Amino acid sequence: MKISFESDYNNGAHPEVICHLLETNGKQSQSYGFDEWSEQARNKIRTACKCPDADIFFLVGGTQANATVIDGMLTSYEGVISVQTAHINVHESGAVEASGHKVITLPSHAGKMDAGELEAWLKAFHADPTLEHMVIPGMVYITFPTELGSVYRAREIEEILAVCRSYELKLFIDGARLGYGLASSECDFDLAWLAGHCDAFYIGGTKVGALCGEAVVFPRGNAPRHFMNIVKRHGALLAKSRLAGIQFDALFTENLYFKIAKHAIDMAMKMRQLFTDASIPLRDSSTNQQFVELTNEQMKHILQDVLFETWEPIDADHTLCRFVTSWATTDRDLEALKNALATL
Amino acid sequence: MKISFESDYNNGAHPEVICHLLETNGKQSQSYGFDEWSEQARNKIRTACKCPDADIFFLVGGTQANATVIDGMLTSYEGVISVQTAHINVHESGAVEASGHKVITLPSHAGKMDAGELEAWLKAFHADPTLEHMVIPGMVYITFPTELGSVYRAREIEEILAVCRSYELKLFIDGARLGYGLASSECDFDLAWLAGHCDAFYIGGTKVGALCGEAVVFPRGNAPRHFMNIVKRHGALLAKSRLAGIQFDALFTENLYFKIAKHAIDMAMKMRQLFTDASIPLRDSSTNQQFVELTNEQMKHILQDVLFETWEPIDADHTLCRFVTSWATTDRDLEALKNALATL
Amino acid sequence: MKISFESDYNNGAHPEVICHLLETNGKQSQSYGFDEWSEQARNKIRTACKCPDADIFFLVGGTQANATVIDGMLTSYEGVISVQTAHINVHESGAVEASGHKVITLPSHAGKMDAGELEAWLKAFHADPTLEHMVIPGMVYITFPTELGSVYRAREIEEILAVCRSYELKLFIDGARLGYGLASSECDFDLAWLAGHCDAFYIGGTKVGALCGEAVVFPRGNAPRHFMNIVKRHGALLAKSRLAGIQFDALFTENLYFKIAKHAIDMAMKMRQLFTDASIPLRDSSTNQQFVELTNEQMKHILQDVLFETWEPIDADHTLCRFVTSWATTDRDLEALKNALATL
Amino acid sequence: MKISFESDYNNGAHPEVICHLLETNGKQSQSYGFDEWSEQARNKIRTACKCPDADIFFLVGGTQANATVIDGMLTSYEGVISVQTAHINVHESGAVEASGHKVITLPSHAGKMDAGELEAWLKAFHADPTLEHMVIPGMVYITFPTELGSVYRAREIEEILAVCRSYELKLFIDGARLGYGLASSECDFDLAWLAGHCDAFYIGGTKVGALCGEAVVFPRGNAPRHFMNIVKRHGALLAKSRLAGIQFDALFTENLYFKIAKHAIDMAMKMRQLFTDASIPLRDSSTNQQFVELTNEQMKHILQDVLFETWEPIDADHTLCRFVTSWATTDRDLEALKNALATL
Repeated sequence: MKISFESDYNNGAHPEVICHLLETNGKQSQSYGFDEWSEQARNKIRTACKCPDADIFFLVGGTQANATVIDGMLTSYEGVISVQTAHINVHESGAVEASGHKVITLPSHAGKMDAGELEAWLKAFHADPTLEHMVIPGMVYITFPTELGSVYRAREIEEILAVCRSYELKLFIDGARLGYGLASSECDFDLAWLAGHCDAFYIGGTKVGALCGEAVVFPRGNAPRHFMNIVKRHGALLAKSRLAGIQFDALFTENLYFKIAKHAIDMAMKMRQLFTDASIPLRDSSTNQQFVELTNEQMKHILQDVLFETWEPIDADHTLCRFVTSWATTDRDLEALKNALATL
Repeated sequence: MKISFESDYNNGAHPEVICHLLETNGKQSQSYGFDEWSEQARNKIRTACKCPDADIFFLVGGTQANATVIDGMLTSYEGVISVQTAHINVHESGAVEASGHKVITLPSHAGKMDAGELEAWLKAFHADPTLEHMVIPGMVYITFPTELGSVYRAREIEEILAVCRSYELKLFIDGARLGYGLASSECDFDLAWLAGHCDAFYIGGTKVGALCGEAVVFPRGNAPRHFMNIVKRHGALLAKSRLAGIQFDALFTENLYFKIAKHAIDMAMKMRQLFTDASIPLRDSSTNQQFVELTNEQMKHILQDVLFETWEPIDADHTLCRFVTSWATTDRDLEALKNALATL
Repeated sequence: MKISFESDYNNGAHPEVICHLLETNGKQSQSYGFDEWSEQARNKIRTACKCPDADIFFLVGGTQANATVIDGMLTSYEGVISVQTAHINVHESGAVEASGHKVITLPSHAGKMDAGELEAWLKAFHADPTLEHMVIPGMVYITFPTELGSVYRAREIEEILAVCRSYELKLFIDGARLGYGLASSECDFDLAWLAGHCDAFYIGGTKVGALCGEAVVFPRGNAPRHFMNIVKRHGALLAKSRLAGIQFDALFTENLYFKIAKHAIDMAMKMRQLFTDASIPLRDSSTNQQFVELTNEQMKHILQDVLFETWEPIDADHTLCRFVTSWATTDRDLEALKNALATL
Repeated sequence: MKISFESDYNNGAHPEVICHLLETNGKQSQSYGFDEWSEQARNKIRTACKCPDADIFFLVGGTQANATVIDGMLTSYEGVISVQTAHINVHESGAVEASGHKVITLPSHAGKMDAGELEAWLKAFHADPTLEHMVIPGMVYITFPTELGSVYRAREIEEILAVCRSYELKLFIDGARLGYGLASSECDFDLAWLAGHCDAFYIGGTKVGALCGEAVVFPRGNAPRHFMNIVKRHGALLAKSRLAGIQFDALFTENLYFKIAKHAIDMAMKMRQLFTDASIPLRDSSTNQQFVELTNEQMKHILQDVLFETWEPIDADHTLCRFVTSWATTDRDLEALKNALATL
């Protein structure tokens, strides 16, 4: 079977995660979020975030987390502002609109939102006399790292947050790949800082070593009233909540979550070197997703040896391709890629 | 720690299920439903259902499966008919209404719907000149076994299906505890028969040996168009779909699913005997949920030794209590209950 | 053409209403609620309600008003409690559920809700450990007068309001036929009292002399934030808002609204006498809707001369029929009915 | 009071419309769409459209018509494609998303959609392997005339329709100002042609001489099943449907609708001349909405005499302003404008 760099969700769980599932399997527990491992994991995450009062809920996947948090934090008529390329705007089959909320879009700058453009939009909106005929924004949604592998600097998030505060908007950060963003060499803040600079975010598990699970964090105990009910109404409440609890308990024991992320980033940087050595251009990215500009010839050739994803056509002869690392990427995997590149 | 009979979702996974997760963990796979184990599991389920053309989707939990299937099969304005005590009407936080569909209720007969009452209601509805001002029914929803532990007979389902066919309604069967219903001594049909007598149903995994997962079956390849998109829109599409696929692959290997169910029923029948021996009245139930009428004195007393759920008050002095068995219930557990009863 | 007692919406507008439309037709005005007549009408209604701070919005019809107010006042996950026979539960094609809100039903007592039953239900709900798995009630909805022609006494509304206050529920009163309720001999309160005993209500225009229009009143300036936006989102904002404003301006000039209602009630009482004189049994009703128990023979016979609505079968030989009066009912109309009854 | 050119909905009804309301007011009628005038109006519209089998429904306003038709024609998960500047995307408070449907946007070319861009988008969509993770388009929505006063040529609509047919999308045309578009000198087709080149459209009444009302036309009897129920569920069903029926009966008697539109266009062309004579630049527009580029000085000056709407800032010193004519615009009104311009 060919080595795959297609995604960070095509492996099983990190061995320590799967082991914890195994070693706890024989014990009985409470359900619907009240099991002991969920409680332990919540405490460990509170510590890691330096948010002793945080409300934490374990949901199953990213789209579900986005739809549930956005619907839970917004009033029914409010919309959410994101950039054009945002996951909620492009790749969630309209899950946000399914709850009646419009996704209002701003331009994407390599996946990032610009605080100045956000402020200009809001200023124009509030100056518009037909305001009550338009969708009223209630939240800003950004992804960290972005869908395109870029990472916000602390200053950029501070600026976005300041605009949100001026206009009474909530700030929600989609952290489906949070670990990889925090482990990036470009990242100039840590988890606790992030928790202090938004109204809600989630710590992605599915793409960072778990089989499933996203830890939604309301850092200052600011979960919407009856959030558990909202979760259940979205079909997102696990009966055997231990499934998520045990995994996050493992991920937040001895910094496993951060170790996994660091490993993937290290592998990604080695991978960049391989492409550079082969004189193949890459887009800037300091995270675990690398976007490579291949000729269609090269693409076909490499695909004979290793798998990856075609992202979008560049022109008639070139395609942007995505190569992704994860906790599971090994030096042997990179060797396979190196060999494939050598044959070009 | 006390033995718990509170539910069939307070244990981990059946050992063979957890082992299969472990043994496959190192392999890479496709995602979003295209992994090899999901494909294998689908084939095994098709065989078990004798439905070679069935469309099968693995969702995470029961409420999610109900909301997604109902929304997917109904036109936006249609409602779903269930009995008053139906899970979708009582215990899903309005997940069905969240997609805009009314739950239209008929009386519950120990959890079951009566085909005659269904027909009478439909006849009156269609005779009503204000029909277009009312919610138009598009589906009948029943649970097998019911929330109260009862099981439909083949004839009863045939009658309900015949009414559905007459009035062009879909029939959807919630099988969150399907295994336990099929294993009941009262059940006079098998899985293949069931698959032939409805438009959609699901095989509950969460309560029958898995950590999570419900296998939604459209028996004749009759999944709604773009059902995968509908699943994604409901936040119900697993990125690491292997999580569900591997578990169902294990459950449908060498009849594990049915063995688990049979074991739980055997244990439940032994449990009934314990109560009967202690002269404590039980409601009729041939499934893994037993409803016991305890005096409040007895209730407090037994709770000192084993755990169970209070279901609803009967009168000032008596409470209906639920004791549930599962794949994990052992003779030792029953021994603990026996001892507890002996002290009354 | 036969005289019709089928409904209170099968005539045009009251002459003074249509005249006001005519006499103002040549003037230009602002739109979307900012026209001068809407403003005048709001002030007249504030005076009539003795609510100087009331927020008032003119919507087009009853179902629209119910769906918009309920959606506007509830948080997305909340449900609304009504009796089984409530208009929102039976005859609005699921407009409330279309916005995601469950209608939770209590028994109907001749169309009315019983405060004791409401309290008992809420007490049980809050005592239920699975509360977060159920739809959380946010509002009580009652109709005045009810769909069955009955009217609440002041004490009954006080009791319901007290329960609402204890459990932090809003109380919303559907007044599609409000005038007829207030004009009933059984009614022991007035408009201002009603405005002081709920969180929102509406003054029905369509059935009380207007061509269309319902005046939604939030008595203490307590309209939901951005309610105009909510109205627009529900497709309920008139561009030419003058259409509603002019009509309500007429209706609340020199007590026209109350005169119309009194006339209809007077006619209804005369009508009761006609049936009584003909020894035909009627249900109790002090409003403009009269429910008459006819043999199927009688029904056919009377239908040859005047029109009315069949409400529901009583038994194989008898049908409950509805006869409705309005501002437009004349003594000549009653004469026609009397003649029809004389031929039986 | 100042003459206003702010909108085409700041006058009452055309005299013949209001007269018809008056002359019919004394008659009783059926309700909920079954009154005689609605039936007559439907027949007249069928004749005018040369669509003998058309299904026709009278709704109250434009946002309501858009939300109801779009929700009624789409499957729950489908989205609607429009240009960025489309009314449904900008000025309907999210009414389309409120029913769960995403508005997918393409660039606006003076308000119009380009068939080539539409096709390119659809081609890319269908080539995307992640298609099932994206919102599936089910309909194309265009406005005629557009929000910016432009009108599609027959060829442009043919091209859009051809793309819709290739990709099995419905084509829906918002005709809130339909009359003014058809009366434009640029328009090279008539009502019957339009009816033959889409799946649904509506004939706007509110802005073309009525007090309220939009006639939704499904030209080939292709209304969605139970569309009346869908209308009711959207709160859009008039009890006194005569209100809309009578007005459309008048509008489609002796071509009144078209005469009104022609008059407004004639007035608009005279108005253009006034601005041209005053050397004030205008945007191209052959309909009743004229977009004028005023200096902020000029703007203030003119506002002392006549009213109009500021549309959007052009630069620090200039503002785009909208002047609108309607059935009610008179030569005297234009005289007032001329005088205002003379003082600049």
